[in-house]
Amino acid sequence: MKIDGRHHRTIVPDADGVSVQVIDQTRLPFAFEMRRLASLDDAAVAIRTMIVRGAPLIGVTAAYGLALALRADPSDAGLARAVETLAATRPTAINLRWALDHVAAQLRPLPAPERFDAAFAEAGRIAEEDVASCKAIGEHGGRLLAEIAQAKGRRINVLTHCNAGWLATVDWGTALAPIYMAHEMGVDLHVYVDETRPRNQGAALTAFELNGHGVPHTVIADNAGGHLMQHGGIDVCIVGSDRTTASGDVCNKIGTYLKALAASDNRVPFYAALPFSTIDWTLSDGVAEIPIEERDGREVTHLTGRLADGGFATVEVVSPGSPVANPAFDVTPARLVTGIITERGVCEASPEGLLGLYPERRRAA
Amino acid sequence: MKIDGRHHRTIVPDADGVSVQVIDQTRLPFAFEMRRLASLDDAAVAIRTMIVRGAPLIGVTAAYGLALALRADPSDAGLARAVETLAATRPTAINLRWALDHVAAQLRPLPAPERFDAAFAEAGRIAEEDVASCKAIGEHGGRLLAEIAQAKGRRINVLTHCNAGWLATVDWGTALAPIYMAHEMGVDLHVYVDETRPRNQGAALTAFELNGHGVPHTVIADNAGGHLMQHGGIDVCIVGSDRTTASGDVCNKIGTYLKALAASDNRVPFYAALPFSTIDWTLSDGVAEIPIEERDGREVTHLTGRLADGGFATVEVVSPGSPVANPAFDVTPARLVTGIITERGVCEASPEGLLGLYPERRRAA
Repeated sequence: MKIDGRHHRTIVPDADGVSVQVIDQTRLPFAFEMRRLASLDDAAVAIRTMIVRGAPLIGVTAAYGLALALRADPSDAGLARAVETLAATRPTAINLRWALDHVAAQLRPLPAPERFDAAFAEAGRIAEEDVASCKAIGEHGGRLLAEIAQAKGRRINVLTHCNAGWLATVDWGTALAPIYMAHEMGVDLHVYVDETRPRNQGAALTAFELNGHGVPHTVIADNAGGHLMQHGGIDVCIVGSDRTTASGDVCNKIGTYLKALAASDNRVPFYAALPFSTIDWTLSDGVAEIPIEERDGREVTHLTGRLADGGFATVEVVSPGSPVANPAFDVTPARLVTGIITERGVCEASPEGLLGLYPERRRAA
Repeated sequence: MKIDGRHHRTIVPDADGVSVQVIDQTRLPFAFEMRRLASLDDAAVAIRTMIVRGAPLIGVTAAYGLALALRADPSDAGLARAVETLAATRPTAINLRWALDHVAAQLRPLPAPERFDAAFAEAGRIAEEDVASCKAIGEHGGRLLAEIAQAKGRRINVLTHCNAGWLATVDWGTALAPIYMAHEMGVDLHVYVDETRPRNQGAALTAFELNGHGVPHTVIADNAGGHLMQHGGIDVCIVGSDRTTASGDVCNKIGTYLKALAASDNRVPFYAALPFSTIDWTLSDGVAEIPIEERDGREVTHLTGRLADGGFATVEVVSPGSPVANPAFDVTPARLVTGIITERGVCEASPEGLLGLYPERRRAA
């Protein structure tokens, strides 16, 4: 999407044809800088240090990383070493492993001299597929927002939590894709952006995205959304999903469940926008079955930000000596989810709803 | 309550008999320092700069401030000037105005030479009344926690939001009084402390209090409470109240409503602990009738904390250029409140429940 009127993607092939350019997300929201990745090592560092983040973008970066590795060493041993190195950068990222296995499987049968070109092209195809999938989510969700705006006959207010925007994908994003698409369609909307403690992805990244693209928005503390809904201040909620059960339970950034409760209590529609790849058809009870990552307490006790002089500092904000817990995700039960928006359309958050969009899974079951 | 094994109050008469000592709360949680207030100016600065904060403590400090003013100038003009100066320090604090009017009314009939001693003694009486009221809340609520622990037959987990602890009062606090009392009674309990964005009173003050007094506790992001309740991690919630309607609606720090929703969804009992003085008998619909203070957006965009070198810094954490909204309170409807704990006992959050504890109000109605 756009920053200051110019269109960007999070990752693009460089004009030299043998490297890629990525947005350095560790510098956001205070500086916008591109970085060139020209080697396996560049790609591995970019993923490990979160220069790139977001499951889809990590997958695409890893695929390009494999290509960059093969330029230096296209042998079978080089391919195996590159897969191993890249897989170790973020061991829990499912898309990362999938992208590596997918590209490596296509390369192994090829003669070594052809591997770089083939890998580079395949990484590009994965990137285009991600863009197409996100754009389709945007089209289905954008129509839904347009209908809500039509029914209200005024500017509508959308609440979102965390960052499921274009910075987490190649372009468009998931939860933010319908917002961008509705904005492009001329729907008059305004977005409330949850700060999203403890890592502040809403305040830092979603706010940066919406500001850059020119979508009206307001940042609020995570605590404020319920109060806004009580007073008619929110017309619809849209969040992303890290993992979705076959029954429509949605596992997303910690705090999502609280907003879904408030939406339900105030009859505000609550949607999750997600690509096919987040649906785990083997699960039916998200609260009971999805393991929740417990992250470093330092994410709660310390914050990094910009000083008045333009420098950066990390400050401690919790009373010293107090223990901290930091669960990273929660599960919103399907009963609180009005609908699920995927690249195939909008459905009820239920087994029948999801199988309606993915009938091939009905045969698999 | 205690800090490192030694009992403290937030405000105490100095041994010299002509000044008071207060805890400098602007230094918490990173430093514990007392400050001597010896003049009207000292007291006014202490209230204005939030060296003291919390409605009950502000009222007591103002009453002592009036006494300190009269030591320098006990004339009628001096009394009037002191009331005016102190009332202007925090114009919206109801207890502040009440304490000033109450003490001034007692002093006016007295000859000037007797006014300092009378005012100092009356300020002390207001402080003792506050302690007695908070302690009574602690006794009623403490028994309730003991019963829950008895029924569970194991350590219980209590969730609290914001700081309604002894630092906001003279001693004991309101929402934390039952926790301290249960702890004193030997009830095995552990407290989850909501960080309480944007001002972080939970992470900074409640955590400091519980750590100092030796009550087991864990700080969490405000987003985490719902997830803990879904997994049986919370046995009871206790929060304070800034304003309570005659129907039992509770206006408390922003985010309280979201925790009450999660408690209801998971059948976790949810209590508000509050003194008589917060009940506004003229209101019946809290969401519709209680005006919510909108505070400076800088509380959301900037955070102050301790640097690794022990110094302090303020950092910006929201994407520059993004607008911010900062409502400070929300209203939890009585239907989500299991019970209200006051200095008179525990009652249902309903008109009949509150009138049962305050039958004199039934005659007034």
